[in-house]
Amino acid sequence: MNRLAATRKGVATRDALLDHAYAIAAAQGLEGLSLGELARVAGMSKSGVFAHFGSREDLQLAVLDHAAQRFTDQVLVPALRARRGHARLRAIFVGWLDWVRDNRDGCPILSATIEYDGRPGILRERIVALQTRWRSELRRAVQMTIDAGELPPDTDAAQVGFELFGLVLAYHHDARLFEIEPAAQQSLRAFDRLLGSPVS
Amino acid sequence: MNRLAATRKGVATRDALLDHAYAIAAAQGLEGLSLGELARVAGMSKSGVFAHFGSREDLQLAVLDHAAQRFTDQVLVPALRARRGHARLRAIFVGWLDWVRDNRDGCPILSATIEYDGRPGILRERIVALQTRWRSELRRAVQMTIDAGELPPDTDAAQVGFELFGLVLAYHHDARLFEIEPAAQQSLRAFDRLLGSPVS
Repeated sequence: MNRLAATRKGVATRDALLDHAYAIAAAQGLEGLSLGELARVAGMSKSGVFAHFGSREDLQLAVLDHAAQRFTDQVLVPALRARRGHARLRAIFVGWLDWVRDNRDGCPILSATIEYDGRPGILRERIVALQTRWRSELRRAVQMTIDAGELPPDTDAAQVGFELFGLVLAYHHDARLFEIEPAAQQSLRAFDRLLGSPVS
Repeated sequence: MNRLAATRKGVATRDALLDHAYAIAAAQGLEGLSLGELARVAGMSKSGVFAHFGSREDLQLAVLDHAAQRFTDQVLVPALRARRGHARLRAIFVGWLDWVRDNRDGCPILSATIEYDGRPGILRERIVALQTRWRSELRRAVQMTIDAGELPPDTDAAQVGFELFGLVLAYHHDARLFEIEPAAQQSLRAFDRLLGSPVS
């Protein structure tokens, strides 16, 4: 096998391992992750896993980044096809609700936030960075809606981002504890009340 | 000791044990609770603890009820002094934010919700019952605000309860991950935008 083929195989193996690790973390949290458990689930030797992730913490960080990448691919990227402004903001919000629905066994990012929000260290720092980045993407999408004249010019974009975040958290809460359909409807109704109807 | 005194002593011991158990659950979740650990923390024999809580599950249920009672005493009861309508609803909301602030190490009810929302059983059922009761208290307070003419008559009280819940979840999230003061301000601003200013 030449060097390029070996590299490609290594990347593919790492991606497959990350998919397994993502599933473990979704069900059991980042604390449920270990190199040994991942090796068992993936049917690999522990040293094989160790070659890809040098430590348990490296693995946990890689899973967080992997989850954030999936989130971006599923929620943000498709929304970029919608017109800047209200249409795009609503596409982001709907995609985000779908993400919660698809991750009903547990969103690894939210679970990690709850696990580590009170535990200083590198994992908490990465979570803060990811959540900060997401909040700023939301702010950007709200700002574009203001710039498109579809929200009043004195709208506080950070405030709207905070409120949208709360709506998704309430949706996540109610979907898991009560019933998902009424919660989905309440979330969308709240979005439409908060952001108004698009100017067509 | 006569029977009444013995009963009083028993109740006092049970209350003291519940306070210890509450602190353990707040920091480590209901899963962190056991009769043995509680005995150790309270400086009692395990059989002494067992006399008050027949099983680990009984203890977990008692802690949930204890937390709900504290929440009611701290958030709902003081708000009943405010006039029915907007004033009372805002007092409830502000008291709820204070509860989150006071329980920054973890609100045992919310932690339990996250622990058990996906695990069918008696603990999940109790959590569903507590959260359902709280949501109906919120709905009642919103309905009183409508009845007082301080919200439009076509206001959907359950919808407002859902959105208020989301605001507190976002506050809880941001207070633990970012900074508490901006989150408190954003929560209150959102409340005032959602519910309007009181009619004086």
